[in-house]
Amino acid sequence: MSTLRLGLIQLAVGATKADNVARAVSKIQEAVSKGAQLVALPECFNSPYGTSYFPKYAEPIPGDSTNALSKAAKEHGVYIVGGSIPESADNKVYNTCTVWNPQGEMIAKHRKIHLFDIDVPGGITFKESETLSAGHSFTTFDMPGCKVGVGICYDIRFAELAQIYNQMGCKLLLYPGAFNTTTGPAHWELLQRGRAVDNQVYVAAVSPARDESATYHAWGHTTVVNPWGEVIATTEHEEGIVYADLDLGYVEKVRDMVPIGKQKRHDLYGIVKK
Amino acid sequence: MSTLRLGLIQLAVGATKADNVARAVSKIQEAVSKGAQLVALPECFNSPYGTSYFPKYAEPIPGDSTNALSKAAKEHGVYIVGGSIPESADNKVYNTCTVWNPQGEMIAKHRKIHLFDIDVPGGITFKESETLSAGHSFTTFDMPGCKVGVGICYDIRFAELAQIYNQMGCKLLLYPGAFNTTTGPAHWELLQRGRAVDNQVYVAAVSPARDESATYHAWGHTTVVNPWGEVIATTEHEEGIVYADLDLGYVEKVRDMVPIGKQKRHDLYGIVKK
Repeated sequence: MSTLRLGLIQLAVGATKADNVARAVSKIQEAVSKGAQLVALPECFNSPYGTSYFPKYAEPIPGDSTNALSKAAKEHGVYIVGGSIPESADNKVYNTCTVWNPQGEMIAKHRKIHLFDIDVPGGITFKESETLSAGHSFTTFDMPGCKVGVGICYDIRFAELAQIYNQMGCKLLLYPGAFNTTTGPAHWELLQRGRAVDNQVYVAAVSPARDESATYHAWGHTTVVNPWGEVIATTEHEEGIVYADLDLGYVEKVRDMVPIGKQKRHDLYGIVKK
Repeated sequence: MSTLRLGLIQLAVGATKADNVARAVSKIQEAVSKGAQLVALPECFNSPYGTSYFPKYAEPIPGDSTNALSKAAKEHGVYIVGGSIPESADNKVYNTCTVWNPQGEMIAKHRKIHLFDIDVPGGITFKESETLSAGHSFTTFDMPGCKVGVGICYDIRFAELAQIYNQMGCKLLLYPGAFNTTTGPAHWELLQRGRAVDNQVYVAAVSPARDESATYHAWGHTTVVNPWGEVIATTEHEEGIVYADLDLGYVEKVRDMVPIGKQKRHDLYGIVKK
């Protein structure tokens, strides 16, 4: 597989969990019908985004929402990065992404490791840690020809995570995320392009569609960036599916042209994975 | 000093070393007359940029070019980041930046630590290492209210350098640099904005003006970015001086709003300075 077709679902998420899951499954089917080999959902695809919703919508894994993803992956023979759901475990709630192979098996699970606690006066104040707990692990999975690193939303602000995924051999970093109308225009694309050019990898970020009636207004703009730092696919804030054909050989091409990976001064600095 | 006025000199560099130095000194004077407290020159300000020129234009430090900077700093009572010159030392040639305080004393010296060896087919092929040797040290200096980290051009591609300067307490990263008309439009501003938003620091990059008759066509676009990742001053490719008033308190303000510095997962990863 030297070309990989992504189908990134900018899902309209509402208040009814079962409806959200059904809608996600139907969009997965649509993406597969257009040739997507890896389909991804946004952060919090089965629940509105908000600290009060997380405990209410949380469910264990496996559970109804993730069972639906497993079934869809198997039925369509596709890899699915299941955005995230509020996961209940150990009397805590995590913001968790599950990854499914074409056999319907869960091959990775990422619990958001950096919780979104920010306070921008006149913009947005949000404190995920009021109801969520953080994960403690890096998460990658393998597809034919491509190792993929997974982060959730605020995780993208931490360069170290991407640097470690690069060291681990990832060619694609995938961030389900829900930036908002303050941080979105300022940083959503910049962070993706920055991670791409610094690590010479593809970067994809998948947002929910914006719901003006919700308490949290997602930025949308599901985007794919190539290893040269160019946006190769994007959209506005309405529901839709963003497709991109990744030329996996281009990763090595960029690394040959500007060989920063080989030129790093390991005698002077290093990124350490603990 | 809670506000710091930068004067970044996008110098037209020609073939005659003495003329380049005299022009630089005259532009320093102009910048100071407009209130600049820190004046910076571009990479290779006393010599055309090219591997064949470096040994020919190289001189020891102290030498004519840097003595002129010392004199100008003292005469005008200003901090000067002296872009870079080809420096001869130990039978080698380095790409070296000197920094001068208002007393005319050299307070820092940075030898470019990442040499510019790239090969973009149909774009640009360049191999600094044909005639240059790399430095082996991090370089910071202190001004009232602001520690400054210094890198030269290609150094900016290495996120680790900026991350270490951030750890060392820098609020401003300053990169004299000469990107070209291939890598410039693709990455010059992106890299600066990326370093700024990831480290929540000011970033300034100073290019020579473009000389269409030269072998190397500099991108120009001397730029200043704030810690929120916004371009606050820039220009095209002609000779000129770019001014910016840095609100040093804004660094802490951004870090309070989006506290990624405090939220890093030191239990999972780290940046190591060796």
